[in-house]
Amino acid sequence: MKNMVALSLKYQEGVLSILNQQTLPNQVEWLVSRSPEDMIGYIRELKTRGAPLIGVSASLALAQFAEQGASENEFRMAALALKEARPTAVNLMICIDRLLDYDTYDSSQVVAKAEAIFDEDVELCRKIAIHGASFLEDGDNVLTHCNTGGLATVGGGTALGVIAEAHRQGKKIHVYVDETRPLLQGGRLTTYELQELDIPYTLICDNMAASLMAEGKIQKAIVGADRIALNGDFANKIGTYGVAVLCHYHKVPFYVAAPYTTVDRDCPSGREIPIEQRDPFEVKGVQGAFGKVQWAPEKGQVYNPAFDVTPAQLVSGWVLDQAAYTYQQIQDGVLKP
Amino acid sequence: MKNMVALSLKYQEGVLSILNQQTLPNQVEWLVSRSPEDMIGYIRELKTRGAPLIGVSASLALAQFAEQGASENEFRMAALALKEARPTAVNLMICIDRLLDYDTYDSSQVVAKAEAIFDEDVELCRKIAIHGASFLEDGDNVLTHCNTGGLATVGGGTALGVIAEAHRQGKKIHVYVDETRPLLQGGRLTTYELQELDIPYTLICDNMAASLMAEGKIQKAIVGADRIALNGDFANKIGTYGVAVLCHYHKVPFYVAAPYTTVDRDCPSGREIPIEQRDPFEVKGVQGAFGKVQWAPEKGQVYNPAFDVTPAQLVSGWVLDQAAYTYQQIQDGVLKP
Repeated sequence: MKNMVALSLKYQEGVLSILNQQTLPNQVEWLVSRSPEDMIGYIRELKTRGAPLIGVSASLALAQFAEQGASENEFRMAALALKEARPTAVNLMICIDRLLDYDTYDSSQVVAKAEAIFDEDVELCRKIAIHGASFLEDGDNVLTHCNTGGLATVGGGTALGVIAEAHRQGKKIHVYVDETRPLLQGGRLTTYELQELDIPYTLICDNMAASLMAEGKIQKAIVGADRIALNGDFANKIGTYGVAVLCHYHKVPFYVAAPYTTVDRDCPSGREIPIEQRDPFEVKGVQGAFGKVQWAPEKGQVYNPAFDVTPAQLVSGWVLDQAAYTYQQIQDGVLKP
Repeated sequence: MKNMVALSLKYQEGVLSILNQQTLPNQVEWLVSRSPEDMIGYIRELKTRGAPLIGVSASLALAQFAEQGASENEFRMAALALKEARPTAVNLMICIDRLLDYDTYDSSQVVAKAEAIFDEDVELCRKIAIHGASFLEDGDNVLTHCNTGGLATVGGGTALGVIAEAHRQGKKIHVYVDETRPLLQGGRLTTYELQELDIPYTLICDNMAASLMAEGKIQKAIVGADRIALNGDFANKIGTYGVAVLCHYHKVPFYVAAPYTTVDRDCPSGREIPIEQRDPFEVKGVQGAFGKVQWAPEKGQVYNPAFDVTPAQLVSGWVLDQAAYTYQQIQDGVLKP
């Protein structure tokens, strides 16, 4: 397999490794994946995360396994096990199905497909970034939520990729980073990426964005998506909908950025998107490589949805890899198959 | 001095003690205050907090000191030192000035005044609670932000006192508690109080309120205030303004509750309220009796205002001890001296 290097996944001189996202930003630690079993563990433990990234990571682990001389049976069993590692991340299933779709099992074919999957993700991110960057102007302060950068993809990211592209084009951009409770992907990961990219940023608690908007300090907001319905409604990390309402009230343009693989062609509107409820402990405290503390009463009731749904009418533009779409285009059915 | 017992301050059989709010809710710990010096330490270290509560705590510490036989000089020096313990909490200055306003120094007079200050705070809270409870209906889910209950006052609290009164009146109320980053007064203290009062609640991260409103799960919101301007604009814990905007968008009535002492008669509008910026560490991690962790990069920039300002036009009603006022009454100058 050829050498491939991304921000949080690399294959070099026969060694596959992932950047441990659980210890970021306190510690930059690369973990070697010697087998599909290693990779399943990393995905399960959230050491590698982000729907596009997981799909590519699993593909490289399988290709490596094939190259190491796995029999067809071993290969198919490993593929099955990898698919189970994160049941909701649809990119994982799609990538693995592409590797399994052959007439005759041939390790060199598997490797070629895995390489193509890696390269495609880079290309999707590049196109999203270019389409989105045209919306950001020199001097803009841009709000973002959660982590949507190179850590969540193999390429330059989705929403954060747009910001990075505008920065590369020489536009002076300052990023306001929502910390994104409860899992703090903004506070831990987006801050880390922006620092690596040398893009100026200010970290805020999620509840501080409103007063910044009232003071006219935010010109644009851009976020990623976990699933986009055909009518333009989309699910994303909890808190995204609140940002969209605040943007609407303060007349701040609000964009969503994602690859075509995030559009669910079986989902007519946001009402059909199921919302996962997560462990109450996440809200009662915090836990990570940085430590674990709990401040809320043990027995109290908690509401902890992983995502919320933003209706299309609050969105100023859908930045996909094919193009950026307006509300009118979405209403006219541009996302429909 | 007579026996006086509040949720987080008590004087019983000659012993003055405060409930340590730094160790709540993990640990219920009462700390004895033997001298004004002890109380100054407790206020400085935020072991006792909440503007009304601090004023009363300082008064009782001074009255105890007078009763212990302090000379007039000792008494005046202690009063001066107590005033310095928390420079921005105006209730502290007002209460101590009342104790210092005498013709002849007389410990029994000081004690009588301190007792009156304690009783007045209870009475202000009681009146606020009754005026506010009329807005809450049987079956309401009520959102609140920060801590505004018995822990922040000597009485039953302001916004949380309103909720407790509605509950006492037999109305079925469920409370959604914003955790209130960065200092987590909601997650640590409001949850604790509601549990003690046996009022059902659900703890949420601040960024989850929006999706609850979209689902029609919140009927009312009520918050406290740190300063109310004469035009009805008010400052309160950071995040309050965002709640107000979300309520406005979702047509959820939004109330503010506070005693008359919170109205700043020298402040025409919210624009004149200065906003304190706090330590960046508060946003980069959390710290308390529960432990200390940091997840964000050491050198990153942070925005950490302690308060934000909510404009009067987003407020459905001002619940004061004298009465509850409408927007029209506020515009007609009812708060003006």
